[in-house]
Amino acid sequence: MKFDVLVDVRLRGGIADPAGATIERALPALGYDGVAGVTVGKTVRFTIEAADEAEASSRSEDLCASFLTNPVIEDATVTVNPAGESAEAGA
Amino acid sequence: MKFDVLVDVRLRGGIADPAGATIERALPALGYDGVAGVTVGKTVRFTIEAADEAEASSRSEDLCASFLTNPVIEDATVTVNPAGESAEAGA
Repeated sequence: MKFDVLVDVRLRGGIADPAGATIERALPALGYDGVAGVTVGKTVRFTIEAADEAEASSRSEDLCASFLTNPVIEDATVTVNPAGESAEAGA
Repeated sequence: MKFDVLVDVRLRGGIADPAGATIERALPALGYDGVAGVTVGKTVRFTIEAADEAEASSRSEDLCASFLTNPVIEDATVTVNPAGESAEAGA
C-alpha cells in the first residue's frame, strides 16, 4: 500500500535564520510594512510503500531523523496519508 | 490585528527537481526501499499586520507572487490564520 508523506522541516527556536532575516530586512524597502518574524523552512514530499499507516509513519520518521534533517538545528513534522487522499501531502 | 501566514512553495509539475532526485537515488543504498516521487520545496512563515483576514490574505498573496517565489517555475499555497490560533502556521 502506498502512502503520501509530507516532511515539514524548520529551524529550531534560537537558531539563526539568515534567509528569513534577509527577507524581513528587505521588505520595508519593497513597500511591505508590518511583516515580522520571517522564517524559512523546507519540505520534502514522497510516497512510501508500506503494509499499513503505522509502518509508513515509523519508516518515514526514521528516514527523516537519519537523512532528511539535521536534528541538532532542525525540527521536523511528518504527516502520513494514504496515497491520493490528501491534496496537501500528495498533489 | 496580526495574522500568521504560511507560504508553501513547491516546484511546478515538469520542472526538474535535482534535490529530490538526488535524495531518491541515494535512499536504496542507505537501506530505504519503496520510496518514490521525492520532491523538495520550501516554506516561508511570517506574521503580518492587517485590518482583517481578507487584507492579510491579499497582501500575503501579493508579496508571495512578487518576491517570495518565482511563478515561472514554482507554485505557492498561502495559508492565513489569526495570530496564535494555528500551531501549523504559527509555532
